[in-house]
Amino acid sequence: MRYLMTPDQIPSAWFNVAPHLPEPLSPPLHPGTGEPVGPDDLAPLFPMALIGQEMSADPWIDIPGEVLDILQLWRPTPLVRARRLEQALDTPARIYFKDESVSPAGSHKPNTAVAQTFYNKAEGIGRIATETGAGQWGSALAFACQLFGLECFVYMVAASYHQKPYRRVMMETWGGQVVASPSDLTQAGKAVLARDPDTGGSLGIAISEAVEDAATHPDTHYSLGSVLNHVLLHQTVIGLEARKQLEQAGEGLPDVILGSCGGGSNLAGLALPFVPDCAGARSGGPRLVAVEPSSCPTLTEGRFEYDFGDEAGMTPKILMYTLGHEFIPPPIHAGGLRYHGDAPIICNLVKNGWMEAVAYPQGKVFEAALQFARTEGTIPAPETAHAIRGAIDEALAAKEAGEERVILFNYSGHGLLDLAAYDAFLHGQLADV
Amino acid sequence: MRYLMTPDQIPSAWFNVAPHLPEPLSPPLHPGTGEPVGPDDLAPLFPMALIGQEMSADPWIDIPGEVLDILQLWRPTPLVRARRLEQALDTPARIYFKDESVSPAGSHKPNTAVAQTFYNKAEGIGRIATETGAGQWGSALAFACQLFGLECFVYMVAASYHQKPYRRVMMETWGGQVVASPSDLTQAGKAVLARDPDTGGSLGIAISEAVEDAATHPDTHYSLGSVLNHVLLHQTVIGLEARKQLEQAGEGLPDVILGSCGGGSNLAGLALPFVPDCAGARSGGPRLVAVEPSSCPTLTEGRFEYDFGDEAGMTPKILMYTLGHEFIPPPIHAGGLRYHGDAPIICNLVKNGWMEAVAYPQGKVFEAALQFARTEGTIPAPETAHAIRGAIDEALAAKEAGEERVILFNYSGHGLLDLAAYDAFLHGQLADV
Repeated sequence: MRYLMTPDQIPSAWFNVAPHLPEPLSPPLHPGTGEPVGPDDLAPLFPMALIGQEMSADPWIDIPGEVLDILQLWRPTPLVRARRLEQALDTPARIYFKDESVSPAGSHKPNTAVAQTFYNKAEGIGRIATETGAGQWGSALAFACQLFGLECFVYMVAASYHQKPYRRVMMETWGGQVVASPSDLTQAGKAVLARDPDTGGSLGIAISEAVEDAATHPDTHYSLGSVLNHVLLHQTVIGLEARKQLEQAGEGLPDVILGSCGGGSNLAGLALPFVPDCAGARSGGPRLVAVEPSSCPTLTEGRFEYDFGDEAGMTPKILMYTLGHEFIPPPIHAGGLRYHGDAPIICNLVKNGWMEAVAYPQGKVFEAALQFARTEGTIPAPETAHAIRGAIDEALAAKEAGEERVILFNYSGHGLLDLAAYDAFLHGQLADV
Repeated sequence: MRYLMTPDQIPSAWFNVAPHLPEPLSPPLHPGTGEPVGPDDLAPLFPMALIGQEMSADPWIDIPGEVLDILQLWRPTPLVRARRLEQALDTPARIYFKDESVSPAGSHKPNTAVAQTFYNKAEGIGRIATETGAGQWGSALAFACQLFGLECFVYMVAASYHQKPYRRVMMETWGGQVVASPSDLTQAGKAVLARDPDTGGSLGIAISEAVEDAATHPDTHYSLGSVLNHVLLHQTVIGLEARKQLEQAGEGLPDVILGSCGGGSNLAGLALPFVPDCAGARSGGPRLVAVEPSSCPTLTEGRFEYDFGDEAGMTPKILMYTLGHEFIPPPIHAGGLRYHGDAPIICNLVKNGWMEAVAYPQGKVFEAALQFARTEGTIPAPETAHAIRGAIDEALAAKEAGEERVILFNYSGHGLLDLAAYDAFLHGQLADV
């Protein structure tokens, strides 16, 4: 059963969780001086409107009309009750998922790409540089830039650029320019190529190139697809819509809310609007659960400390759970979850016991993905399948307990450009890390 | 702007165009005797319920509840007003499209796959054999069989099986078994392999294998994804929903209705419910337009005569426009439009002047696809891009005439598994046939 809302029911403001957090967020620190970073430090890379949102304490922030005009191409997204999955599990739980896969780029990422591009355009910026791994973020930004008429320049990790060309083609279809990183267009890229001409690149190197590009090109800013407060803010339309749709479905608050967690933005988008009600804040509210890969267990095994956001140590240091900024996870198919740290907001909630975290190996995750595809019909992204695994296990726990629990998870993206991973799983060639 | 309906608003009956056609359909003829084919001739391949629908004169046929239960996983599909495309064209026309790409398999094909699988199951059939070219039909049938618990066995044209593995993986994800055709599992396949061990296969050979499989396996039927009357019938949910959604949008009847045309099922699904109002039947009603590739110009250049449905000449002969059953079109990216004939219902309408046909070369089609992706945001299938090309040209004609026309087309599928074609187009490597 799908619960729909009409385009005029998109939330008109983003929900800012900052005033509701268990303790204030600690400031990012300058990588050189170790002093707290101020707006001026960020101004060469981001428009002031986004810097303001990054540090805002306002409980709600209005969504500009031009952003809503584009979001309504696919929003509000459906809330779906997974009845066929419930039946297959023979569980008394009611399982709902918010379907963010319906966006043109196929994931939740355009929610923030559109907003970021709007604010850049509003400040007169004509070109945005960014990095992308497998291409989810780069394709969302290329889409947004095309619709606002900005240039989009993407440094794509060379290994993905060569082995997974389809997201590169998506970016180009939307007018984006894409180069393999490391490239000879930046000093950072040239230095790496000089050392290792055949390198496959890394997300850390690609970040360095995109930041250098933005800092050295006129009219150019940098854009990031997760981790930062303003990115999570833009994703809260997900949870705000889901609250209303659960009411439509005749439900109260869910018992548990789950999302896969790489940088944390899709999980945050669904969960943050429920923080004022959550079990950590108020007894009886929903449990919030982050699901991560066992091979990159940031929240379940990382240290809570200040660390760099990138591999090369060029970004401000942020207080978060981290596996160390030089940690390189194995090449699992859920490329979007291969990040050594997590969004400070997510870490704040976990540190204070308002959010739980669980980790699964890849094999268990693909078992869940296949069960979902064979009951509900759609094929999930490997990242999304982490949340599905968590939701299935919660539904089985409810069955064990004989309780009618309400489970809500974020269906963050489809797996139509990840079919090679399914091929490996179906034919016994998936590394179970 | 998207016009949505709730799942309880799916039509409860299919629209049968037969009583409304300008002249009665001519019967299919037995390939051996040349006599009209009767129900008993078809019984080894199809369930009686579908044979009944194939020949029915009832104006409406109820949709079974179990079919509706599955259709509502994605239906009703959105009707979308393409305002951003209108603005880019600076046209006074209002352009609407029905978005059939939102199904789990990514096209309109599951509308009939679900219905056909239901009727097979109801008659106790446990296994369905079919053929597929690039894999759109095979994936839709594998999806439907998985949801009803039937086995699905797909003979996939060998060239596609090896060069385009992703739809094969989709079928396997839904539990389908897929073999490259020609295979050594049938006499037909073995004979071809004996002559030419390295052949890439063809749709004609794959049909022969699937039909032989169904005829020689117990408990097995055959299933076809287009052309036949009952297939077109199942697709009429598209047009029935679109009629109601146009009312929601404050529109009367559209001025022109377009669909891409290979076998004819997506075009028929949208257009047939408008036949009683169409210009051929009643002055002032909507024009109906079939859009086909210049390289396979069945309706625009074919002969109207009895011909075989398959390349090998094993199926009944049907009265249709045909390029000859041995015609092999060039390997354009719109694989779904590479058929030498067309559905008898579509041909009946064209022959009697109730439907027009237009053909475009591949380059003009991809220009339209790119313009659509860069304005409306989503990336269309190459097949679908034919309808988009037609709709854009209608909108430009309306601009030329200074008239506020209403244009409706079928967005039959997404292009996420066709990005290699976009890659070729963007880099000047597309053959413009």
